[in-house]
Amino acid sequence: MEIGIIGLGKMGLNLALNIVDHGHEVIGYDSHTEIKESGFTQVSSIEEMVKQLEAPRTLWLMVPAGEITETVIEQLIPLLEEGDAIIDGGNSNYKDTLRRAAILKEHNMFFFDCGTSGGTDGARHGICSMIGGDAEKFKTIEPLLKDISVEDGYLYTGEAGSGHFLKMIHNGIEYGMMQSIAEGFDILNKSPFDYNFEKVADVWNNGSIISSYLMEMTKNAFSKDAKLEGIKGVMNSSGEGKWTVETALDLNVPAPVITLSLMMRYRSLEDDTFAGKVVAAQRNEFGGHAVEKK
Amino acid sequence: MEIGIIGLGKMGLNLALNIVDHGHEVIGYDSHTEIKESGFTQVSSIEEMVKQLEAPRTLWLMVPAGEITETVIEQLIPLLEEGDAIIDGGNSNYKDTLRRAAILKEHNMFFFDCGTSGGTDGARHGICSMIGGDAEKFKTIEPLLKDISVEDGYLYTGEAGSGHFLKMIHNGIEYGMMQSIAEGFDILNKSPFDYNFEKVADVWNNGSIISSYLMEMTKNAFSKDAKLEGIKGVMNSSGEGKWTVETALDLNVPAPVITLSLMMRYRSLEDDTFAGKVVAAQRNEFGGHAVEKK
Repeated sequence: MEIGIIGLGKMGLNLALNIVDHGHEVIGYDSHTEIKESGFTQVSSIEEMVKQLEAPRTLWLMVPAGEITETVIEQLIPLLEEGDAIIDGGNSNYKDTLRRAAILKEHNMFFFDCGTSGGTDGARHGICSMIGGDAEKFKTIEPLLKDISVEDGYLYTGEAGSGHFLKMIHNGIEYGMMQSIAEGFDILNKSPFDYNFEKVADVWNNGSIISSYLMEMTKNAFSKDAKLEGIKGVMNSSGEGKWTVETALDLNVPAPVITLSLMMRYRSLEDDTFAGKVVAAQRNEFGGHAVEKK
Repeated sequence: MEIGIIGLGKMGLNLALNIVDHGHEVIGYDSHTEIKESGFTQVSSIEEMVKQLEAPRTLWLMVPAGEITETVIEQLIPLLEEGDAIIDGGNSNYKDTLRRAAILKEHNMFFFDCGTSGGTDGARHGICSMIGGDAEKFKTIEPLLKDISVEDGYLYTGEAGSGHFLKMIHNGIEYGMMQSIAEGFDILNKSPFDYNFEKVADVWNNGSIISSYLMEMTKNAFSKDAKLEGIKGVMNSSGEGKWTVETALDLNVPAPVITLSLMMRYRSLEDDTFAGKVVAAQRNEFGGHAVEKK
């Protein structure tokens, strides 16, 4: 089929190449970059993309969640026709997705939310995708989803919003799994024993209960830097962990481990903490315990 | 090689069969059970086992950690000779292992601590093993470890104690990963969307960042009972998670996620909690908030 891809960053470009590999026709657009020798048609504006695509159109957005996604969709709606479909492949908040799907429905257009996992390598060679939206219309894009995903690596998740919701939870689980692995290696690092962390992660990937993609990535990291001495323990986050915690709060679900994984990321962004000062000052006040002066 | 296995429970029997498959000679003993048509020799006492094995002997213990392991080792020491080796394949506390290894060293005997992961299926068809003990003597048992483990699935971890320590951390990580996965599905279960959990776990195992052995087991569970309505959410634990937390405390390592995973297991064992009563009573005292009477 013919598909327009908006956003040719790390994920978008790899996805476009993946789609081309499977014999589909791609028209690509990026507001910042033109990819040289991409192997697919590139246009210089969204208007031109819409003009070149035959109706009913399928447009895949691979742009940052939030304002940029919002702007692109606002720009697209007046250009599109009834029956056209937008697939949001980014990590949008599912509440935004519910709102956008309702707006497109008013225009008799279709909105699909496709959570994609697997990183840039997955985008290039096979993603894991969770996609929500109209069940009937989904049948027309299902072959595409099947082609770009790994075997059995796509799931139609139900109505619009359910794809991004599921991807959000996926990322929340990822936070907890990563923090748990990290804490384990932290204890090993302070233990009386002298472990080779690369070998530890490697043996844990061969037949153990905690073998996982994340442990493989852990092994790769230790293979490059045995004790990770070259990097700082700053753990950034991109929003989905926070949304998972917010959703747990909305739904009154006790999710302490995912929540604390997020909090530990926040803690890692600070060299010193105000909370730490408060406790140090309190201990000094009531017990005369020494405080460290700046 | 020739090996004596003490303890023919779920793990011990499967391990014995695994060892026999690889052409080694097994003499088995269990204080409770005699296995019919086992395919290996069984004896009716530890004394008889020691008598039948040629020196230097290799004895693999697959008995419950704690008192039983202690008793078996106490019973073995006077029967064994210099140069004999005991491999403790159970989940012993590494502090017990350090103590036992020191005692055996005094007798010029060898003590190996072998953490084994992979469950009963692993024991039968290939374990993941982490083994500590004397480096020179290890060479004599390395072929056995290689045979019974999956490919690249064994690691010599250093001095005695390091194998059980590593297995303990493995289990601690397992607690955190399991709790994180569980919290994610808990949010999904209370979400406004209608997911097929078996399919969710399945798609997450195909190309996603959280694909893992534990997610495969999660999928298997949902395939048998779509919403797990047939079981209670009681999460027992067998000690290694607790030891991981104790070790984190010993070494001053912040490990909140593994710790909270353990606490959530304890919470799951209680229908009602005294802490809950205290908070309900406090809210009633200061705010007049209703309490639920028994």
